[in-house]
Amino acid sequence: MSTFSADAWTRNRALYDATLALPFNRELAQGRLGLDAFRHYIVQDAKYLVAFGQALAVAAAKADDPDHIVQFAGAAREAVVVERALHEDYFGRFGLDAAAVAAEPMSPACHHYTGFLLATAFREPLPVIAAAALPCFWVYREVGHHIHATAAADNPYRAWIDTYAGEDFAAAVDAMIATTDALAAAAAPPVVAAMHGAFTRAMQLEWMFWDSAYRRLSWPV
Amino acid sequence: MSTFSADAWTRNRALYDATLALPFNRELAQGRLGLDAFRHYIVQDAKYLVAFGQALAVAAAKADDPDHIVQFAGAAREAVVVERALHEDYFGRFGLDAAAVAAEPMSPACHHYTGFLLATAFREPLPVIAAAALPCFWVYREVGHHIHATAAADNPYRAWIDTYAGEDFAAAVDAMIATTDALAAAAAPPVVAAMHGAFTRAMQLEWMFWDSAYRRLSWPV
Amino acid sequence: MSTFSADAWTRNRALYDATLALPFNRELAQGRLGLDAFRHYIVQDAKYLVAFGQALAVAAAKADDPDHIVQFAGAAREAVVVERALHEDYFGRFGLDAAAVAAEPMSPACHHYTGFLLATAFREPLPVIAAAALPCFWVYREVGHHIHATAAADNPYRAWIDTYAGEDFAAAVDAMIATTDALAAAAAPPVVAAMHGAFTRAMQLEWMFWDSAYRRLSWPV
Amino acid sequence: MSTFSADAWTRNRALYDATLALPFNRELAQGRLGLDAFRHYIVQDAKYLVAFGQALAVAAAKADDPDHIVQFAGAAREAVVVERALHEDYFGRFGLDAAAVAAEPMSPACHHYTGFLLATAFREPLPVIAAAALPCFWVYREVGHHIHATAAADNPYRAWIDTYAGEDFAAAVDAMIATTDALAAAAAPPVVAAMHGAFTRAMQLEWMFWDSAYRRLSWPV
Repeated sequence: MSTFSADAWTRNRALYDATLALPFNRELAQGRLGLDAFRHYIVQDAKYLVAFGQALAVAAAKADDPDHIVQFAGAAREAVVVERALHEDYFGRFGLDAAAVAAEPMSPACHHYTGFLLATAFREPLPVIAAAALPCFWVYREVGHHIHATAAADNPYRAWIDTYAGEDFAAAVDAMIATTDALAAAAAPPVVAAMHGAFTRAMQLEWMFWDSAYRRLSWPV
Repeated sequence: MSTFSADAWTRNRALYDATLALPFNRELAQGRLGLDAFRHYIVQDAKYLVAFGQALAVAAAKADDPDHIVQFAGAAREAVVVERALHEDYFGRFGLDAAAVAAEPMSPACHHYTGFLLATAFREPLPVIAAAALPCFWVYREVGHHIHATAAADNPYRAWIDTYAGEDFAAAVDAMIATTDALAAAAAPPVVAAMHGAFTRAMQLEWMFWDSAYRRLSWPV
Repeated sequence: MSTFSADAWTRNRALYDATLALPFNRELAQGRLGLDAFRHYIVQDAKYLVAFGQALAVAAAKADDPDHIVQFAGAAREAVVVERALHEDYFGRFGLDAAAVAAEPMSPACHHYTGFLLATAFREPLPVIAAAALPCFWVYREVGHHIHATAAADNPYRAWIDTYAGEDFAAAVDAMIATTDALAAAAAPPVVAAMHGAFTRAMQLEWMFWDSAYRRLSWPV
Repeated sequence: MSTFSADAWTRNRALYDATLALPFNRELAQGRLGLDAFRHYIVQDAKYLVAFGQALAVAAAKADDPDHIVQFAGAAREAVVVERALHEDYFGRFGLDAAAVAAEPMSPACHHYTGFLLATAFREPLPVIAAAALPCFWVYREVGHHIHATAAADNPYRAWIDTYAGEDFAAAVDAMIATTDALAAAAAPPVVAAMHGAFTRAMQLEWMFWDSAYRRLSWPV
């Protein structure tokens, strides 16, 4: 019998291919992505990761298995700690400090994605939360590996690429896939269906987040 | 000293004017809005109101004052009951039944707005939930009154217009404004600031919901 | 195949019998329950019902089926509205007003039960919330019927007895049993096991609530 | 102006003294606490700490300040990780494995306290959650120091005593006090009042937890 993760990846393969094909990711790999687009991205990503950490913390709170509490609470902490390090590196290059980042409004794409994650985290049962959080882990690892395999050593976005192509991150992603599969294996069909719905929604919102950064979209009113 | 609601309306006056000026609302008032746009709107609104009811139910759960529990739980129930009646009327005209409505995916604008409301409801303290929910009440009443004052008697969207221009709805909106103001009066400045942030966000998402219906926007991937 | 409710009632039959046999309920039926015990009970019950309404409101917020939203939000509202009427009747007899009731601290038994209901409501999936809330509906109906069948017409607690022995309440209980069974029928075995755990816990806490009122227990420190 | 923590400690000094004076703690310090009482305590504490970790994870999810997310999510993780190590040590002495511990039901005192913490975590705003969680940190440190100062080197409960009398734990407690005070300083008077209510409730529930272990209390029905 197939696992949830294998099913989910197969069903959303076209969405992943569309994500890889985004101008943002192609130009990032080639090292010719405009600094303005990357700056927009990294500021919004800093805001995203705080909310991603908050959503993972709710997963920890809803987990009954102590190992899952440790895993999700650890991932919540890491989302803020590790990514802050990465961002601070880039914020320095862009002459941004924490106050300047805080002063920039969340983009519509970031607000949409984080609202979805937090609403799912607080309202849905744990298996659905895990499924909603999984694309952010998994897609970043795959995109990271893909870009890492093609990027030149002097790519200006090297630190970003190396983070998501690293072994530590890969192991964390494997652990999150395994936990999500274990939760799905014990879940009733309507919950598994909700897991697939949440996974696909997060894949779409990942695509929209990158697309939005490339086009530097802001609120229409 | 000014109330929260008076402050909020003043600060967001331009957003309200922009909402009134949307093609969707102008053409609705003139009775010449295309059926396709209204059909898109009414299907998404049915999905929206279910989530709006869920968010109001969380407000009831977080209220300490028994009168507020009655008010928010009653509003949660009404969101589903009354609006279902209105929608069933229009669904009949469009040859839609409940299964057909359920089968249509939530639009990005509806998904964005409802995710925001539910995330706010579960994560934020009661005054911020009330502020996030208020625009849906208040803007609909004002738009309803504005359109009612100009629409012809044979406007095909008469039932919709009359619901939001009616006295029952107006009284419910007044009660919600009063409760929100009372909650703001007892709140610390950072909470009031969060209330203003949530109110403005909901005003923007109202505009985007109508704009999205007019343009019948769906997911980009 | 047996329903959840039939299984749950069978499993907890001894707990129900123990509840019926409590001095509080025996003396209430005989009309000789001391006023002090009833006064303690009715004040704590007023506090309980507010929290019960809050927990039912969370159930409404987590329900996906619009009929369930209407049912749970309506029950949340009723918990405050109807019971407030009953309590106000008795509060008058005891010379208590709302401020005096609010000033009395929640008893340990009431605090324990309401903490359980609210923690379950916010943290657990909907089927488990329904199972936790069901004993309060069901046991009261059964105890109400049992006492009603034996109590004299001039029993001083007639209004209380008639409320829980009435047809409206009986219909609401039937609807709640049906919804809980429907949720159980779609749930995976670990969720059904959690439902049974929550149902039994609530049965125990019902017993402890009445026992505590009879003994007028307060905080040990 | 006084801090929240200074006020809270002063107001609850008698409760703290009563906790120190409990037979459980006096006999623990003297090394003559019965193994049965300690066994009951350590099994219930293992269950308690899982729920304490879950409640701290909700605090992380509701925190807006990234430093607070890191602090609360880290504390959630630690509650499970470090304490599991301590418990596993004692479980071995008692011939208990994880399955045996899981099979023992939560005591009423533990169920009451954890229900309170989780209900508070999910329903209340962050300052109140912090206030509810603080006594478990603070009282354990003070009791740990007090017992450490008087206990003989060969006290059979040395590992337990050393954990709570250690510098790492003391620093974590200081950080939690500082965060709680910072949250109180920005809160409105009704929220500060709710913080005091939650702090006192947790102090009472700490006392009841230890008292319950000493008397090895179980469910009355």
